[in-house]
Amino acid sequence: MRVTIVGSGNVATHISAALKNAGHRIVQVYSRNLQHAALLAYHVGAGATDDVNTLTINTDLFIISVKDDAVLPMVAQLAKYGKLIAHTSGAVELLPMLEFTQQAGVFYPLQTFSKTRELNFREVPMCIEGASESITKTLEDLARDISNKLYRVSSPQRKVLHLAAVFACNFTNHLYGIGEALLKDSGMSFDMLRPLIAETADKIKERSPFTVQTGPAVRNDETTMAAHLQLLEKQPRLQEIYEVLSQDIIKNHNGVNGDG
Amino acid sequence: MRVTIVGSGNVATHISAALKNAGHRIVQVYSRNLQHAALLAYHVGAGATDDVNTLTINTDLFIISVKDDAVLPMVAQLAKYGKLIAHTSGAVELLPMLEFTQQAGVFYPLQTFSKTRELNFREVPMCIEGASESITKTLEDLARDISNKLYRVSSPQRKVLHLAAVFACNFTNHLYGIGEALLKDSGMSFDMLRPLIAETADKIKERSPFTVQTGPAVRNDETTMAAHLQLLEKQPRLQEIYEVLSQDIIKNHNGVNGDG
Repeated sequence: MRVTIVGSGNVATHISAALKNAGHRIVQVYSRNLQHAALLAYHVGAGATDDVNTLTINTDLFIISVKDDAVLPMVAQLAKYGKLIAHTSGAVELLPMLEFTQQAGVFYPLQTFSKTRELNFREVPMCIEGASESITKTLEDLARDISNKLYRVSSPQRKVLHLAAVFACNFTNHLYGIGEALLKDSGMSFDMLRPLIAETADKIKERSPFTVQTGPAVRNDETTMAAHLQLLEKQPRLQEIYEVLSQDIIKNHNGVNGDG
Repeated sequence: MRVTIVGSGNVATHISAALKNAGHRIVQVYSRNLQHAALLAYHVGAGATDDVNTLTINTDLFIISVKDDAVLPMVAQLAKYGKLIAHTSGAVELLPMLEFTQQAGVFYPLQTFSKTRELNFREVPMCIEGASESITKTLEDLARDISNKLYRVSSPQRKVLHLAAVFACNFTNHLYGIGEALLKDSGMSFDMLRPLIAETADKIKERSPFTVQTGPAVRNDETTMAAHLQLLEKQPRLQEIYEVLSQDIIKNHNGVNGDG
């Protein structure tokens, strides 16, 4: 397919590279910032522009990969070209796109991307939704060229998926950071925690997280929890996080012992 | 060395296997439950007992790997044998052991263990503390035989380390579980989240977590956060977790944008 990329951020960068590597043609990259557009365009052999009104019509698909609140305004501007338009957002519904065009879909990669980090796109779950069965199929065919993991996900499901990702990934990364900060304050290196973090993530590759929960809360070990809260007495925000999460673990496991 | 293992849980199981594989001799396994002692003893070629008063004196080291609040009572009972005693707990200090014996130390493996899961012990950080330099060196020599990662960790540091591990691992696993539960409620599989969880953990193998934070909170994206809280309106505990963690991320990053 001939694809126009709208946006130049992390998702736009990884998707255009994956599509190009799969033999598709990136015809043009649009960004408000022409330098950003030009840099990505250079890497994928495309043209660059910062003018949404003079995009080439020699394309089959616009992929919009911009900030969530900029997606629908962009759909409004692109509709006049009469081409298929898909966005890559976990949070934007399909329905409001249909006010501007019937040729609408969603092409949402569920992954955390960094520009400077290599990633095997074939393992990235692609979440597809289309305004019609034929659009869904077109986007599925395209997704299959870059990933082994295809899912049909409705707009309400995608919202939940995005929320679940915030818990399991964004919040998780923040907890890693809290761990690092605590160690640093006591003159220890984050390297000490890294193997434990890796094992914690590895453990759930084939198991359900609640079945392998460990720690003082799942054992309802009140002595240790009280000692931990005491250690945090000068960091009330961390105390609050500790309490809220421990209480939820206790309620969730209802006093049943975990894996030790 | 000749080692007596006191306890038969996950940590006792993994440590005795690692020591035996490194050429040390497990002479005896003690557990309150004789069947548990016998099972572990069988695997490591040791004797088994449930009577702490008739342990063999033909040993060089007792490793106590029991619940935190049972450690010191056990030290009190073992002191009469006049041998080196080390415990494997993240939470128990060295000082109170000295009320019972001067031959005391700590042999704390910072990892999450499951009996049924293989694990490369050479990657497990071993946190060592001794009542004297010579005890510290003895325990370090032993630790070096089973792991590449040795750290000298004081009792106050070890408490912080344990607390940091609760944040980075126990709480993290609970967040994975919340993610799974949210997906399940909307008819989706946890498999969709697994690649993202793996990548989130991989990302910090060489980076500092706060530098790679992503998600709505670090972007201070109020629209998305409000929508997420709305989605959770029937789950007040999850709302509270969402708010507490998001607020901490916002304060921590002070409005600075993250990695997208």
